[in-house]
Amino acid sequence: MVDMVAIIEKKKNGLALSQQDIAAWVRGVYGGTVPDYQSAALLMAIRLRGMNAEETTALTLEMAYSGSAADLSAIPGVKVDKHSTGGVGDLTSLVAVPLAAACGVPVAKMSGRGLGHTGGTLDKLMSVPGMQIDLTMEQFMDQVQRIGCAIIGQTGELAPVDKVLYALRDVTATVDSLPLIVSSILSKKIAAGCDAILLDVKTGSGALMPTLHESVLLAREMVRIGKLAGRRMMALVTDMDQPLGHNIGNALEIVEAADILKGCDHGRASQLCLEVAARMVMLCFGSDHETAHAQVHSALVSGAGLKKLGQMLREQGGNSNVLQNYALLPAVAQRVAVRAEQDGFISSLQAQKLGLAAKALGAGRGSKDENVDYAVGIVLHKQVGDRVSRGEPVAELYVNETDRLEEVQQMVRSAITISADAPEPSPLIYEIIE
Amino acid sequence: MVDMVAIIEKKKNGLALSQQDIAAWVRGVYGGTVPDYQSAALLMAIRLRGMNAEETTALTLEMAYSGSAADLSAIPGVKVDKHSTGGVGDLTSLVAVPLAAACGVPVAKMSGRGLGHTGGTLDKLMSVPGMQIDLTMEQFMDQVQRIGCAIIGQTGELAPVDKVLYALRDVTATVDSLPLIVSSILSKKIAAGCDAILLDVKTGSGALMPTLHESVLLAREMVRIGKLAGRRMMALVTDMDQPLGHNIGNALEIVEAADILKGCDHGRASQLCLEVAARMVMLCFGSDHETAHAQVHSALVSGAGLKKLGQMLREQGGNSNVLQNYALLPAVAQRVAVRAEQDGFISSLQAQKLGLAAKALGAGRGSKDENVDYAVGIVLHKQVGDRVSRGEPVAELYVNETDRLEEVQQMVRSAITISADAPEPSPLIYEIIE
Repeated sequence: MVDMVAIIEKKKNGLALSQQDIAAWVRGVYGGTVPDYQSAALLMAIRLRGMNAEETTALTLEMAYSGSAADLSAIPGVKVDKHSTGGVGDLTSLVAVPLAAACGVPVAKMSGRGLGHTGGTLDKLMSVPGMQIDLTMEQFMDQVQRIGCAIIGQTGELAPVDKVLYALRDVTATVDSLPLIVSSILSKKIAAGCDAILLDVKTGSGALMPTLHESVLLAREMVRIGKLAGRRMMALVTDMDQPLGHNIGNALEIVEAADILKGCDHGRASQLCLEVAARMVMLCFGSDHETAHAQVHSALVSGAGLKKLGQMLREQGGNSNVLQNYALLPAVAQRVAVRAEQDGFISSLQAQKLGLAAKALGAGRGSKDENVDYAVGIVLHKQVGDRVSRGEPVAELYVNETDRLEEVQQMVRSAITISADAPEPSPLIYEIIE
Repeated sequence: MVDMVAIIEKKKNGLALSQQDIAAWVRGVYGGTVPDYQSAALLMAIRLRGMNAEETTALTLEMAYSGSAADLSAIPGVKVDKHSTGGVGDLTSLVAVPLAAACGVPVAKMSGRGLGHTGGTLDKLMSVPGMQIDLTMEQFMDQVQRIGCAIIGQTGELAPVDKVLYALRDVTATVDSLPLIVSSILSKKIAAGCDAILLDVKTGSGALMPTLHESVLLAREMVRIGKLAGRRMMALVTDMDQPLGHNIGNALEIVEAADILKGCDHGRASQLCLEVAARMVMLCFGSDHETAHAQVHSALVSGAGLKKLGQMLREQGGNSNVLQNYALLPAVAQRVAVRAEQDGFISSLQAQKLGLAAKALGAGRGSKDENVDYAVGIVLHKQVGDRVSRGEPVAELYVNETDRLEEVQQMVRSAITISADAPEPSPLIYEIIE
C-alpha cells in the first residue's frame, strides 16, 4: 500500500518528493487505489509549496508512461511535435506542419479539440468534408512514413493519469500551478511519442497565462523539464492579446491557412507560421535559423507546403479540393458586418472576447460533448494598428443560428477599441527559448 | 449550488473566507453535496494559509450547529464543561467534576472513549460494574438538575460535520492545523450545550501538542475563539511529559480518583484536580481564585466530593460501593513488578510510552471498535524526582493476557530514566489563560 499520508505530509512541509513517492502516487491514481481526496490534498500542497525540476520531471514521465504511450521509433528521424497553449484564430499547425513536413521533418501530431474561447486543430481539420482524425496507430505511423505528416486525435489512453488529475484540479482550484501545468502538457506530448517539441506559449488576454512574466516562466520551465525528460525542446512566447489571424472559426481558418500556403501575406499569422515551421526544422536537423528559414520559405514559394497539406487531407479521407475551391467547405446562411463606430485606429481587438463571440455563434464548445458548427465564425477585416473610418466593417460575423446574434454583435463590438492615435505596435514574438 | 471552487480559490490565495463561505461549505458537507476531494483541497489550503479568528469562530459555530446540538437551557445556572486534550493517567474529570458539582456547579458533561495511548473518561467510568453512559437527553438533563452532574457518552449526532472532516484530515495530513484543531474541539463542546468551558491543554511527550510553545498557542486560540463564540472560557496548559497520576488504566484510575477524593495527597494529580475544580467554580460563579479554592478544598475535606461521585455512579446504575471496596472493581490475574536497574533518581517517566504500554496490556484501544480490559494497567510507585535503589519496584503491571508481557515490560523499562542526580522539578501548570 502507498503511504499517501506520508507523501502528502512531506509536500505539506515543503520537502521535495522522491521519484519513488511520485511513482507511487501516479501508479496509485492509475490503479484506483489512491482516493481522489488524497490526490486533492496533495495537489493543493503542490500548488502552495511548489515542486522542483526533479519532481516535475518525475511527475511528467510517470504520467506520460502511465497508460499506453505511443512508440514512434519505427519512423526514422527526429519526430517533431508542436504544441500551442491555446489561442484564438491560431491556425499555426495547419500551416507549419505541412511546411515542416515539406522540408523533411517527420510530424506525427496528435491534436485536440477546442474548448471555451480557444479553437482546436482537430475541429478545423474536421471542417474539411470527409476528413478522418481517428486513425489506428498503424495507419498513423504508416502515413507519416509515406508522406511525412499526419494530424490525428489521441489514440488509446495517452497519459490517463493526467486526465484524472486535470479533472480533479479543475474542481479543486489547483489548475494554476506551474509544475502541474508543465507536467500536464509535457506528459501528453511525451506520451504521444515525439523526440522534439516546439512550444508556442501564448500570452495576453486570450491566453492560458495572462501576463508576459508568467508566460515566459512557463515556457522556460517547459523547456527545462522537457530537456530533463530527454526531449529536444524549443519554445516561443507569442502574443495572444489579439487573435493571430484574420479568421476565427473552423472552416474559416482552413481558408486562411490555404491562403497563407499560397503565399498571401497574412501579416502576423504568416510570420508566426513560418517561424514555427523553421523552428521545427531546426529541432529536427539541428540546422541554424537562417538555413531553416530559407528552407521553409522555399517550401512556401514552391507550393510544396500547400501540396503537402492537400496530400495529408487526401490521405485522411478529406476532400483536398477545398484548398482551391473554398465553396466546397461548409457555408453559412448569412454574414453580418460589425462596423466601426468612429474614425481612428484599431487600438485593440481582444482575443478572449472574440473567441467567446465565435463560440457563441457555434464555432466552439463549452463542454467536451458539444458539437460545433464548422461554418460559423468571425472574419476580421482590420488588425490592430489599422486605420478605420466610421461605418467601415471591422469584422464580419459568419452566422447560421440567429438566436444570440445581437448578443454576439455586442460582444464583438466590446472587443474592438478605436482610438484617435495609432497604437504602439506590439511584438508578435516576445521571447524565444532554445 | 455552492461554488466550492471559488471558496477554495479564495483560501488558496490567502484571503479570508466569509461567514457565508464557511456556512456554505459546512452545510454542503452535512448535506453531502460537497465532495470529499473539494473539502480535502480546502483543508490543505487552510492548513497552509491559516484562518483568522473570525473564520475559525464561524467554522466552530457552523460545525457545532450542523447536527442536533444539545439544548441545556432548561437546566438553571451556568453549565460548565471541562475538556482535556488527552493524557495518560489523566483522571482529572473523575475528581474535578464531582468536586465542582459539590460546590454547586451544574456539570452536564459528554465525554469520549480512549484512543491510542490516551485514556478516556467513559472507559474509566465503565469499569464500575453496572455503570451506564448511554442516557437519553431527558435522563441526562434530569440527572444534572437533581444531583448536579452527569458524565455520559455523546447523545445523537453532535457536530457530525466535525466527524466527517476529522476523518478526512486524518487521511490527508491536515490534522496539524491550529484553526482546524480549535474548531474541532470547540464545536463538539459547544454542540454539547455548555455555557462555559475549562480547557486542560496538555503539553509534553504524551500530548496532542508536543512543544510548550504550540500548546500555549492552542490554549490561547481556544480561549479567544470560545469567547468569540459567546462562551465563558478558561484554559490551563499542564504537563504531560510524565503521566498525571500514579495509576494508568481504567479501574486503576477509579481507585486513584477515590483515594484523592478521600483526601489522600497524590501530588501532582491532586493538585491539578483541585485547580480544575476551582477554575470550574470560577467560570460558573465568577468567584475569585482564593474563594473558589477554599470552596473546593472544603468539598474535598468534608467528603462532599466523594459523596457526589458515589451519587453520580448510583444514578447511572453503577455500584458506588466500589469507592469503599476496591475489590468490587474488575481485578487482574497477576501483577508484575518492573524494578529499578540502578540506584539514583527517577529523571523521566515518558507518558506516551507508558500509555502505549498500558494499551498493549489491553487498557486502551487502537481503533474505535476495539474492546478494552478495564482491570489492566500500570501503577507507578515512583514519580519523577523520587529516589530509587537498584531492584526496587518502580512500576507494577496489572496483567491479564500475558502474550505481549515481555514486550510491555521492555516498553515500560524504556520509559523510565534513572539518573545520578535529582532532576530539576518541572512545573505541573505552565500557563493559565483566563
